Amino acid sequence: MEPSQVVESAREPGRQQRMSVICWSSDLDRVWPTLILATTGAASGLDVNIFFTFWGLRVLQKNNKRVTGGNWMQIGESIVDRGGTGHLKLGKVHFGGLGTWMIKRLAKQHKVADPEELFQMAVDLGVRLYPCQMTMDLYGLSKDDFVEGLEPPVGAASFIEMASESDFTLFI
Amino acid sequence: MEPSQVVESAREPGRQQRMSVICWSSDLDRVWPTLILATTGAASGLDVNIFFTFWGLRVLQKNNKRVTGGNWMQIGESIVDRGGTGHLKLGKVHFGGLGTWMIKRLAKQHKVADPEELFQMAVDLGVRLYPCQMTMDLYGLSKDDFVEGLEPPVGAASFIEMASESDFTLFI
Amino acid sequence: MEPSQVVESAREPGRQQRMSVICWSSDLDRVWPTLILATTGAASGLDVNIFFTFWGLRVLQKNNKRVTGGNWMQIGESIVDRGGTGHLKLGKVHFGGLGTWMIKRLAKQHKVADPEELFQMAVDLGVRLYPCQMTMDLYGLSKDDFVEGLEPPVGAASFIEMASESDFTLFI
Repeated sequence: MEPSQVVESAREPGRQQRMSVICWSSDLDRVWPTLILATTGAASGLDVNIFFTFWGLRVLQKNNKRVTGGNWMQIGESIVDRGGTGHLKLGKVHFGGLGTWMIKRLAKQHKVADPEELFQMAVDLGVRLYPCQMTMDLYGLSKDDFVEGLEPPVGAASFIEMASESDFTLFI
Repeated sequence: MEPSQVVESAREPGRQQRMSVICWSSDLDRVWPTLILATTGAASGLDVNIFFTFWGLRVLQKNNKRVTGGNWMQIGESIVDRGGTGHLKLGKVHFGGLGTWMIKRLAKQHKVADPEELFQMAVDLGVRLYPCQMTMDLYGLSKDDFVEGLEPPVGAASFIEMASESDFTLFI
Repeated sequence: MEPSQVVESAREPGRQQRMSVICWSSDLDRVWPTLILATTGAASGLDVNIFFTFWGLRVLQKNNKRVTGGNWMQIGESIVDRGGTGHLKLGKVHFGGLGTWMIKRLAKQHKVADPEELFQMAVDLGVRLYPCQMTMDLYGLSKDDFVEGLEPPVGAASFIEMASESDFTLFI
């Protein structure tokens, strides 16, 4: 899959249109729209950046990485809050706990790609995926805990630079 | 009620200022600010777009439409997650369950319009309200389930175009 | 602490870059990134505005103000939903209720400033902090309930003007 075109910014002639997203949550119902917008944006010819921070950092974790962190708090948090695009859950208890299973099933019936597939599409389409360095420190996560294809970790100052050069920026 | 003026974009001289919102949630405490900002924006002379997606699509449902969808999952979801501006609830359990009732009562005392009134004001002021086609498919919702006054359903690509032409865009 | 520089807007040459945030929530996990982005932005030379509305208004409350409001609903709400940067809690029950304590402890270990410190830094760095007038009316809050260093209360129309003059705007 390749972007069909490069779209020019309406605001700054001569520059590619750019969108940035803060992925702050690891809830399925927030990560899904994040990845749909990111892949759609990239496929439409935009330059797309996502900054994964706070709960959202867990999205970048390898699906088979069960326990992470160095001290008991970090280890405990990693067990309670399982990471990886294959393990995301809805942000609210829904439909008596069946919600996550059900929405994934509905999506499959309607051929909507799931978060694992969308994430890989994002990488393939050149979406830039930035882990937040500060959150990595808090969680005790290192590069080895993450999937392939990410940019180097950055901090809030880099995100602000990204956002201020973007045509639009969303906090999701 | 009519916009008193047309405000020009600070970024693109000669074009009306534009704001876009993703209404992602059907929680009362998110829909309320969405509609307050949209109607205030439109009344101030801005061109306002709202894209209703995911949980947010239920906001567009007719208040007297109790059950929607075609298969058991869609029907079940529509019962658990009742749609329509008259049936929105706070996103967190609050004040022992009294929260939704209480905040509506406080609003009434202070003459803050409720979501049903604000929604109608938005339509009257020319706010453009777009249902998300993909979410309609997932929920099994059709045009007949929605209130009057909406734009035709669109997808993520159309939203991205909207956002990139806006002076500011919010994910609420 | 003083901004090291003034950064020029990429969009409007000759004007300082500007970011605006709607602080809609008083959840620790939302206020924290709000204040980190605001202080980092201001320290990087941006002009930063925060509009505190809905649940977010409680962030501005004095830490030692226990009960606020005039009628029983307002008083009740103020007891259930304690205000002040020292009393914020995570938005989801996490780690069996230990989450708020744990994340604050992890932050301390990694020398990440807590919300109380960050709020004071924001004031010192000249971040403009606007209470929402309408929410003040709903909650029955007055200027005396708030900390020092705020701008005068404003409404949604003022926020929209702020946003439309900003390089980027986030709803957090």
